[in-house]
Order: sequence, then structure tokens, then C-alpha cells
Amino acid sequence: MRYFLLIALSTHSFGHNFLSPLATLRSAHSTLSHAFTRRRPYPTIQMEETLRKALAEKQSAVDSQGNAVRALKAAKAAKADVDAAIEALNGLKLEKASIEKQLQAAVSGAGDGSLNREAFRQTVNNTLERRLFYIPSFKIYRGVAGLYDYGPPGCAVKSNVLGFWRQHFVLEENMLEVDCPCVTPEVVLKASGHVDKFTDLMVKDEKTGTCYRADHLLKDFCNEKLQKDLSITAEKAAELKHVLAVLDDLSSEELGAKIKEYGITAPDTKNPLSDPYPFNLMFQTSIGPSGLSPGYMRPETAQGIFVNFKDLYYYNGNKLPFAAAQIGQAFRNEISPRQGLLRVREFTLAEIEHFVDPENKSHPKFSEVANLEFLMFPREEQMSGHSAKKIPLGEAVSRGIVNNETLGYFIGRVYLFLTRLGIDEDRLRFRQHLANEMAHYAADCWDAEIESSYGWIECVGIADRSAYDLRAHTDKSGVALVAQEKFSEPREVEKLVINPVKKELGLAFKGNQRMVVEALEAMNEKEALEMKATLESKGETEFLVCTLGKNVTITKSMVTISKEIKKEHQRVFTPSVIEPSFGIGRIIYCLYEHSFYTRPSKAGDEQLNVFRFPPLVAPIKCTVFPLVQNQQYEEVAKVISQSLTTAGISHKIDITGTSIGKRYARTDELGVPFAITVDSTSSVTIRERDSKDQIRVDVEQAATVIKEVTDGRTTWADVWSTFPHQSSASADDE
Amino acid sequence: MRYFLLIALSTHSFGHNFLSPLATLRSAHSTLSHAFTRRRPYPTIQMEETLRKALAEKQSAVDSQGNAVRALKAAKAAKADVDAAIEALNGLKLEKASIEKQLQAAVSGAGDGSLNREAFRQTVNNTLERRLFYIPSFKIYRGVAGLYDYGPPGCAVKSNVLGFWRQHFVLEENMLEVDCPCVTPEVVLKASGHVDKFTDLMVKDEKTGTCYRADHLLKDFCNEKLQKDLSITAEKAAELKHVLAVLDDLSSEELGAKIKEYGITAPDTKNPLSDPYPFNLMFQTSIGPSGLSPGYMRPETAQGIFVNFKDLYYYNGNKLPFAAAQIGQAFRNEISPRQGLLRVREFTLAEIEHFVDPENKSHPKFSEVANLEFLMFPREEQMSGHSAKKIPLGEAVSRGIVNNETLGYFIGRVYLFLTRLGIDEDRLRFRQHLANEMAHYAADCWDAEIESSYGWIECVGIADRSAYDLRAHTDKSGVALVAQEKFSEPREVEKLVINPVKKELGLAFKGNQRMVVEALEAMNEKEALEMKATLESKGETEFLVCTLGKNVTITKSMVTISKEIKKEHQRVFTPSVIEPSFGIGRIIYCLYEHSFYTRPSKAGDEQLNVFRFPPLVAPIKCTVFPLVQNQQYEEVAKVISQSLTTAGISHKIDITGTSIGKRYARTDELGVPFAITVDSTSSVTIRERDSKDQIRVDVEQAATVIKEVTDGRTTWADVWSTFPHQSSASADDE
Repeated sequence: MRYFLLIALSTHSFGHNFLSPLATLRSAHSTLSHAFTRRRPYPTIQMEETLRKALAEKQSAVDSQGNAVRALKAAKAAKADVDAAIEALNGLKLEKASIEKQLQAAVSGAGDGSLNREAFRQTVNNTLERRLFYIPSFKIYRGVAGLYDYGPPGCAVKSNVLGFWRQHFVLEENMLEVDCPCVTPEVVLKASGHVDKFTDLMVKDEKTGTCYRADHLLKDFCNEKLQKDLSITAEKAAELKHVLAVLDDLSSEELGAKIKEYGITAPDTKNPLSDPYPFNLMFQTSIGPSGLSPGYMRPETAQGIFVNFKDLYYYNGNKLPFAAAQIGQAFRNEISPRQGLLRVREFTLAEIEHFVDPENKSHPKFSEVANLEFLMFPREEQMSGHSAKKIPLGEAVSRGIVNNETLGYFIGRVYLFLTRLGIDEDRLRFRQHLANEMAHYAADCWDAEIESSYGWIECVGIADRSAYDLRAHTDKSGVALVAQEKFSEPREVEKLVINPVKKELGLAFKGNQRMVVEALEAMNEKEALEMKATLESKGETEFLVCTLGKNVTITKSMVTISKEIKKEHQRVFTPSVIEPSFGIGRIIYCLYEHSFYTRPSKAGDEQLNVFRFPPLVAPIKCTVFPLVQNQQYEEVAKVISQSLTTAGISHKIDITGTSIGKRYARTDELGVPFAITVDSTSSVTIRERDSKDQIRVDVEQAATVIKEVTDGRTTWADVWSTFPHQSSASADDE
Repeated sequence: MRYFLLIALSTHSFGHNFLSPLATLRSAHSTLSHAFTRRRPYPTIQMEETLRKALAEKQSAVDSQGNAVRALKAAKAAKADVDAAIEALNGLKLEKASIEKQLQAAVSGAGDGSLNREAFRQTVNNTLERRLFYIPSFKIYRGVAGLYDYGPPGCAVKSNVLGFWRQHFVLEENMLEVDCPCVTPEVVLKASGHVDKFTDLMVKDEKTGTCYRADHLLKDFCNEKLQKDLSITAEKAAELKHVLAVLDDLSSEELGAKIKEYGITAPDTKNPLSDPYPFNLMFQTSIGPSGLSPGYMRPETAQGIFVNFKDLYYYNGNKLPFAAAQIGQAFRNEISPRQGLLRVREFTLAEIEHFVDPENKSHPKFSEVANLEFLMFPREEQMSGHSAKKIPLGEAVSRGIVNNETLGYFIGRVYLFLTRLGIDEDRLRFRQHLANEMAHYAADCWDAEIESSYGWIECVGIADRSAYDLRAHTDKSGVALVAQEKFSEPREVEKLVINPVKKELGLAFKGNQRMVVEALEAMNEKEALEMKATLESKGETEFLVCTLGKNVTITKSMVTISKEIKKEHQRVFTPSVIEPSFGIGRIIYCLYEHSFYTRPSKAGDEQLNVFRFPPLVAPIKCTVFPLVQNQQYEEVAKVISQSLTTAGISHKIDITGTSIGKRYARTDELGVPFAITVDSTSSVTIRERDSKDQIRVDVEQAATVIKEVTDGRTTWADVWSTFPHQSSASADDE
């Protein structure tokens, strides 16, 4: 069940909080505040409640007018009166129909008549699949749900995103990158809690054995009712929405009870369903030939870093803070994957574990991000029904909205990372976890959520997980994953000292002496001080020795308990870990949606698709087109291609005889930012994708210009002001 | 069993041919030809046979001299004669002892007294593990055999190697890179043959159930005998060597028989062993919650490309040739992994599938590699006991040693790739597969083998797999994975036409008519022409209808068989695939060994470790050292660090108070090529790792110089001739 999962694993349950109904509702709220901005290609949903109430009122007006008509007829009233009453009734019916239509539109998200979310998504996805950004895996064998390939342009985008991630995080922050295997022995995931708690609740069709996610069925039922059944009362609607809102909090029993109450059956067969029961989401396997060493495909990359803490700390010169990072595949055996590229069974994670002294979470570079201002959605705003708002990051930290500087620093760095990739900052927000979403040990947790046609999507989790993970592995492995702080001069520390008097204990307990001694020494400070007080006041006390399974009587002569001042030369502690965890596939999918737009062809007879990828992300940086099929031009194209290759610029030559307009449209659809058109042997034009502006450049300079502008060393605006403009401003449809 | 595996899967059994005993023997031969070159840090093994023979002769000399002594004593010969005979006997014994010592040294590989292979490997591996190039995975839980992490410098080296691979292959050759999941449904690996044939033979300790690889036990037995038992005859040694040579060819029964014959028992317990039986090397799992969809972790990345052929061909404008590429994790559940980083259970593969018209395997860029000359080891040279020799690639192709230009082109590109990474060209050879190593369908196959302390290691397989893979998936999926060649004008083709006469067949066979018709239509050309001849000569013929399970009589009136001229507008065919497959982890390990050397410290009291990585590969390109702890110098260091970050150069600041010599040594051991030492606020020194040469450069220029030389736009030699030299040529041990 989602909720337990979140409690248990916090952001390690990355992706499992995705598009929870809770998030969907929040989405409806917060979207309102900046609806209809220029770039948003689909409308937002709202006014539903008002419309539902109006509909109910209109229905009762229709009902009573109907009664009035019947009463007039029964009373044999004057024809003119009856006709007038009927006319009024018909008027009311028309009004009711109009409200129904509005409600229908509102719940299906097409309120303002523009392209709705689903249609927009369909257009984007069709383009992505047709141009092989992605391919359903093993398609010729009819595929496997939740598995997708990145085709050539998708693979290039992914590689660019990961390259920039390495530059932006690993290189700029001097992180220690590691690369650990996916196959993981059970003991590691036992320690982390995944073996016991990484589950979803499942129900089975009692006849066919087909499995479903219990919360999905309940969610679908509620959504279906809300969207299709216009007759339900505003109260019923409120109840269903409440169920959706608390879906993540429902226990197995509560979920089962709701399924029974609503009479939900198996979607395909209408057969009855089993009670919900937990299904572990890890792919299980067996390591080696004996069958005796169970293993799992890792559900996240973080554990590989935690188990290496000791070595990495040593590598860093035994100094804190430092961060380790890992990019790699992670696996989740979803019960029934839905939502296309957003919920998949295998995906690439990029995770950072920043280890820090729990007593000092300041960050030396925080000032560099303190002035950033972007949409934040703190816990309190969510609870009070407000929407996300722009808050300067420095203020968020100083006001205590964000727990500490280091967490704040990473929030800022994530914001910069995502927006530089091309994520629209108006559709990006940082949402704080509510108390019930967060693990008990977590200090604070924020998700970078990106708005897509599926709603707000959790794409990066940034959590302060305190010392939980290192402690869990210390306990399980017996290897102390701790840090030391050496004091410049020894510090005096008051320490509790427990001295069992072995002679007395030996006389009293004989063969059990050792167990009693160990139990006494194991007392914590509170227990020991209580015992000291009791012994001083009463001379003896009852004391439970677990290893003996019984109470024994301890007298004053058997133990001395005192506080002593000791000199300490160092402090030994378990570091806190602050973990930014990136779902690379989700970020890329949202980037596709944010980058996509259509524009009419020059003739106006069709809509052309464009991805406005920044050069950093674009799968291919440049195309080279000989204007017409001609050996001279093709030679020039080859020379330019060679210079581009040498400069490390990915590009494509297109020597087909298709019109230049068609060729431009073809590469716009791949998001190629620049096109070099060879129309003479001495100079060429360079066209920018979004503006369709063209400049004229010498053949020798072409590759250099592209290199400078794709590397970010100059901008198109600079280039535009430097070189002569090509007069035929757009040949797009010649 | 390896051999069947090879037959079945060819280079797809990548890594399974690694260090086979056959390869070990070959290693001993070919190594001789260029033994004791400057860079080889360990001696080669040889002279063994000669020594064994000499030993046997000396033994029989000792024996007969012993007999002579006894005879003299029995005959009560003169004391002087007896003493002389005894002296001669003792002399012979001393000579025998000397030969034994030489033989011992020869078989343990320390023939010339220099650092031997094992010791060299130990030194390299200690350095690698101490500096976290790699870490045994899950170390705090006592690890898992065959799983390793890349620690920070190892991870950076890997990322650099993969980055260069993308530049050298994907970008320069315009390949279509894809990225497919590791989780693979059974049907795909059933089609590829892995489910049925990807196995090793295993034996079990009959009492404890512990599993061993059958061939490993036999191999260990033979090697142990050969190395430790000096008393065996040259004949016995030859027999054991023969077993080692044919180990890969032994059937399950033969392997079991040899184990019995030699009385081999379980290594740890000495218990008897079971007969050998096959164990599938894939990690199995289950997709989805039902338990009804078996899946495997892919054993190679190639299948993901094959199943996408149709889409990729379309993406390429329905044109051949083109290549697809994939980098990703692959998994093999080894029975008992040995040989450290070379045989692991999870590893990164980089694979290319180049699809080409089987009727035209020329390559337009072959001329660019035709003049390359490097060690090649053709089949014939191996069979006739010769060693690898340098052959110009163009000659190898024109003489037919290498099957075709495209295969040759990739061999050349692989050579360039490996040597640019820093692989020593004297310890790199391209070995052709012997007939019995190659799959029956393969046209030709070459392995890039790199010599390491483990012998010659297969690191890249380059195979012409003909149409096998695409056909296998066509058959299994029913989706035609084919290419078309449109003819510029229609071609006349003679086609066999089989026309069953349904009326006659219906009369004769009634309900079975359909089966007979289908069987007739399914005849191949040879069968049909034979039937035609028989019908013409005898009027009727017996014909086996498989679906009926019996022969039927076909008469002349029942079928017409003829050859007709038809016009064809295109040719439809299954492309051949040429597959270079790179074991990235193995290449990196060999690179470590080839890059490692030691040099004395200035004081001469210790050996310092150095990795001579080229800048391209080096995990960190540059270190920045303030000469002494001093705020001004540290400020300058920070400024330089900032410029390096902006330029995308990975680097490290070391502000510890350690001596500059110690700090140099520390970074030499990580293979950092350049060190910037801040010893003033206006200019700094730059030191090159291997020469220890230093130049003086302005602070503002430092990052640019490093950038130019690490990007390969200039060389250290150029830099050395441009800037003033630092007089204190080496501060390494100040």
C-alpha cells in the first residue's frame, strides 16, 4: 500500500507517490492560480463543485415545475396558463442540459474547448513513437507492459541529460561517483527495509486469478463515478473525492471494506475480488547455482552508496561533508503498469547521497542559490488549501520552511538543473511532503513536481533522511558506518559510569553472573539514574535481565553508578544524509511535453510538430542539407559534416530530393535546433528552428558557429547580430 | 559446456571463451615472439618441455649411475672406483636438482627471476583497491563473488571510456544508438537460443551439494599436475596438455569420464562428484505479479537491437547498410566466478549491430584503415603452431584472410579505439576463431585479445553472424525482419511454379486434400524438379505428407510443375549482421595493467605507483596544489578551480599540508596527468606526470592550457616548447 510504503521508505519509494489522487486534487487547486498562461496547451479542471450544485438546484426546479404543470392540468387550468407553465418547464430543462454540458466538459477537462489534456498527450506521444524517441520494448512479440526502449533520438536526449547531470552535480560539486551492480543480495535489502515493506496491495479476480492493484480499482471507480455519473449529489461527490484524497492512507482492511461497500468487481470479467494482500515490488532472482542465495534487482541505487560509506569517507580524507552519486538502472515489478512512460518496470535513476554532520547542516555555497525564486508549495499551504507560490529560497530557509541550508542548496541546484534542461518554470514546483507522507526519521522532504498532461508528476525527491540508512546497515552488518570529528583540544564531557561489583554479583548469581553484569552495563542513562536513585533510597531494586528471562534483585553493594568528567579527543557520530533522487525517464518525458508545440505550415494546410529542445538537450544539434541534389553541394556538405564530427557535434546529412521545407519540418519534429543549408560552394545559410531566422556564413565558419552556440559559449541572438541575415527569411515551405 | 555454447551462440557467448585453456596455450606460443619487450613487466613461460625432457634424462642417468655404484659395491671394487662413481652420482643429482629448480620456475612463470605475473597482478590490484578504482560489492556484508563496484576513479575511467566509445563509433559512424531494458521476456531469449543453450556444465559435491564448473575442476587438476608434479613424464605432460587444449570441445559424457579417470573429487571436502549436467547462466525472474511470465536479465544487449530491426530500418529511410549500437548492463549467473574483475556476474557491454546486404559487404571508408598494420593471428597460423604477426589490414582483406571489407573496417576501428585508450599495441592481437569455435552460420569471427597477467583476454568480439539473428526472430515472432532493394528497372527472374490440380486431388484424397495441397506447395526447388522428372518418366510418384504422417501416390494429373519467367521490381532479403561486441570492464582492467608502472622515489627508499593513463581516460585530469598552506595561494587555487569547472575539466584541490612530493605521488597513483602547483599569486607551475617536467604559466592561462592538452587539441610536447621551463625540474621529493 502506498501509504505504508511512504512511511517506511520515504523518497526511496521514488515514483510510488506519482500521481496519487491526493496529488491530482492538489493539482486542480494549484493549477487554477496560473491557468491559461501562454504556454499551457490544455485547460485546467475546475468549477466542478459549483456546477454540480447548480445542476442539482436546476433538477429540483425542473421537478417542481413539472409538478406545477401536472397540478395545473389536474386542476383543468386555462390553456394559456398550462402552456406558459410548460414553456417555463422547457426553459428549465434547456438550462439544465446546458449545465450538464458544462459539467461534462469540466470533469473531462475540456472546459474551454481547446485541445484537452488527453488529445495533447496523444499528439505528443504519437510524434515521439513515430520518430522513435521511444519504442514499446519487444514490440514484435507484442511487448511487455511497463518496458520501453529509447530509440535513437530518445537515447541521445537521455545521454545529453545524463551528461549535463554529471557536469552540473558531480563535477561542479566534486561528488564521488560510484557504479554498483543491479543484482543485490537479500541481506542488503533486508537491512534497508525493502524485503519486508516495499509492497503494493493487490487483489485477485477470484475466478481467473488476474491481479490488480487494489488502490487503482478504487481510484478508477471513484473517478469514473465523478466524471461519468452526473446524477450523483454534491455530497456523494464530496465523499468520493475524500476517498481519493485519503486513498494513500487506507489500510489493507479499509481498502478491502471500501471495495466491498462500492461493489467493485474485476474490470474485465465482473468476477468477485479477493481481499487485498501485499505484493513485493522487487524482481526476485537467485545468485549462483545452488538456489540458496536469494537476490533482487535493486529498486533504487542508493543502497550501493550507503554500504560503501566507510570507504568513501576514507577516500574523502575522513572529512565531512561530502556527496556520493550514482547513475543506474532500477527495477520495480509493478502489478499493472499504467500511464505510459511515467510508470515503468525498469528505469534510470540518478541519486546523490550528501553526508553531513547532523549538528551542522549549513552549506558554504548556499549564498549562490539564496536569491533564486520559484514556486514552492510548503506543507502549511497544502493543508490550508492554498496554492504554490514563489518564495525566495533564502527566505524559505531563514523562515524555517525548508529545514536547513544544505537541503535548500540542493533544492536550488535542482531548480537550475531542470530549467536549464528546458523545463518550464511555471510548470515546476517544489512540494513539501505532508507529515503523513514522510518517514518518521526524516527531517524534511521536498519533491520537484513537474506539471504534465497526467497532472503534477514527482520527478525529483529531495529528502533529509537523517541517520536512518547508515544506522540500518551498521546494525545489520556490524560494521560501524560513522564519522569522527577530532577536537582541536580535548573536551571535558560528563559521562555516566556503571561499575558492576563482580565479587558481590558472583556470590549472588553464580553461573548467571555474566548475564547480570552485561545487562547492568547495557542500561541507558535514564535507566541507570533511576536505579541509582532507587538504590540510594531503598537499598535494593528489582531488575529485569532479558538474557535470563526474569527479574533479579540488585542491592546497593552490587553496582556503583556515577557521573564522571572525562576528557574526549573526538566525537563519533552517524552522519545525516541528504538525498536528491532523480527519475531520469520522468524528467525526460515532462521535457518532451514542455518542449512540444505545433505551428501551421506555410500553406496553412497542416499543423507541423516542433520540439523546442535547447541545444544542450537536442538529440541532434544540426542538420546539413544540400539545397538541391548536386554533386558540388554534396561535397560541401561532406566537408562541413567532417568538421562537425571533429568538433564532436552530432548531426545528420539529408541528401534526399525532398523540398527544403519538408526537410526542415522533418528535423523540427526531432527538435534539431540548427540547419545548415548548402546553396553555394562558398557560403551557406544557418537556420534556427524556433524563429526560423536564417543567417549567411562562410563554409569554413559553419561548424565553428554551430559549436559555439551549441556549447553555450554564445547565443543565437549574438550570432544573429554578427552575421548577415538571409533575405528569404523562411524557405520552410518552398 | 563452453564448446556447445560457442557453437550455438558465437560471439554472443562473449566472455565465455575467456582464458580457456586453449587460449592459455596459445598465449605461451605467441608471447614468445615478443617476449622481454621494454614494457612487459612479467616474464613469459616456456622451455618447459625441454626441461621436462632434460629432467627425465637426468633422472635415468641418476638411476643408472646409482645402479653402477651398487654394482661396483657388490663387486667389491676398489674404494677409489666406488668413490669416483659416487661422486659422479652426486654430481648428477645436483644437476637434476638444478633442472628441477628451473622447471619449477618455468611452470610457475618466474623464469628470469623478475617480478612474476601473480606478483605484478597483486601490486596492480592492491593499488586499484586501495585507491577505490574498484570495491568488492556489498563488502560490509562479506560481498558476493563476481560482483564489483566502480569506486570514484574507476567510475570516472569507465565514463571516459564510454564517452570516447560514443564519439569514436556512434558519432563518427552515424550509428543509431538505442537503450533497451535488462528485464527480458522468455520468448525473446527462446528465439535467440539462450534459454536452451546458454549453459555451462556443472558437477555437485554428492554429499554437501556445493556446485562446481566441471571444466574448471578438470582444468585445475591438469594445471596442478603440470606445475607441481615434476615427476610426471613428458608423455603424461603432453596428455594433460592435450586435455587442456580440447577442454572446450569435450562433451558432457567425455568430461564426466575424464573426471572419473583422474579420480577428481570435490576440492574442499574430497567427496565424490555427480556427473556433469547443464546449468543455465541467465538470472531468471518473473515479470508481473501472476508468476506466469518468466523473464531473464539479458545476457547481452544485442537482442534488444535485433527485435527493433524493422523500426530502425525505417528510421534509416529503409536504406542499408546502417548500424545500431547499445551500451548497457548484461548479466551472467556464473557457477563460480574466478579471476577477479575479468569474470563477473554483471558487466557493461557496448555492442554494435551493423546491418548489411549479404551480396555487398564492401565498406566506403575501408581505405581509411587499409594501411593499418598490427598483430593478427589467423586461423591457419594458429593451427600450424605459428604466432601472431603484423599484417596490413588491406592485405588481410584482399588475401581473404578477413572475410570482407566491412568486417575488416571494424577490426581497424577497434584497433584504433583500443590503442587510443592506452592499450599497448604490442600486447594486442586480433585472433580469428577456429572452425570449431565458430557458429555454423557465422561467416568469420575475430577477437581482439589483450595480454594481461591472466594471459590473452578476449575483450572485443567482431563477428559476421550472417542472417542468423534476424531469421531467428522472424521465425519466432512472425514479423518479417527483412530489407528490400528496389530495382531501378524490373528484372526478369526464373521462378518455380507449383500448381496443384485441386479437382483431381479432391477426388483422390477427399478430406485430406488440403494437407496434400499444402505439402506440394511447400516443396523446395530440388524436390519439385525431382517430382517433375519422376512424373514425366513414370507417371506417378510416392510423396510423403508430414501432416498426414504417411506417403501418398501423386499422379501426373494432380500437379503441374514448371519454371516461369517473372518480372520482379524488388529483391527482399534478410540482411547480414556484423557485430563488434565490447566487454567494457575487461578493456578497462587490461588498460589498468598496461598503464601501471612503478618508479623509485627520489630518496630511492620506496617504489611509487603510477598509472600512465592518457588524458582522455584519466579519471581526474588535473590537481591544484597550493605549495604551502597560505590563504593567498588557496585563493588562487580556487580561482583556477573555478575556471577548470567552467571548462568542464574534472580536477581536485589538495590543500593538505603534506609535502608537494607526497601530493604528486598520491595523484600519480590515480593517473592524474597534470598538476598545477600554486607557488605565487601571478603564475603557477604545471607538471606532467610521466616526464615529471614542469613549465611556468600565468594564472589566467592555466585552465586553458590544461583544457587544450586534455582535449587533445595540443600535446604536452607542444606545450613544453611554448612555455618557460621550471628550473627545479622535479620537486617530487622535497
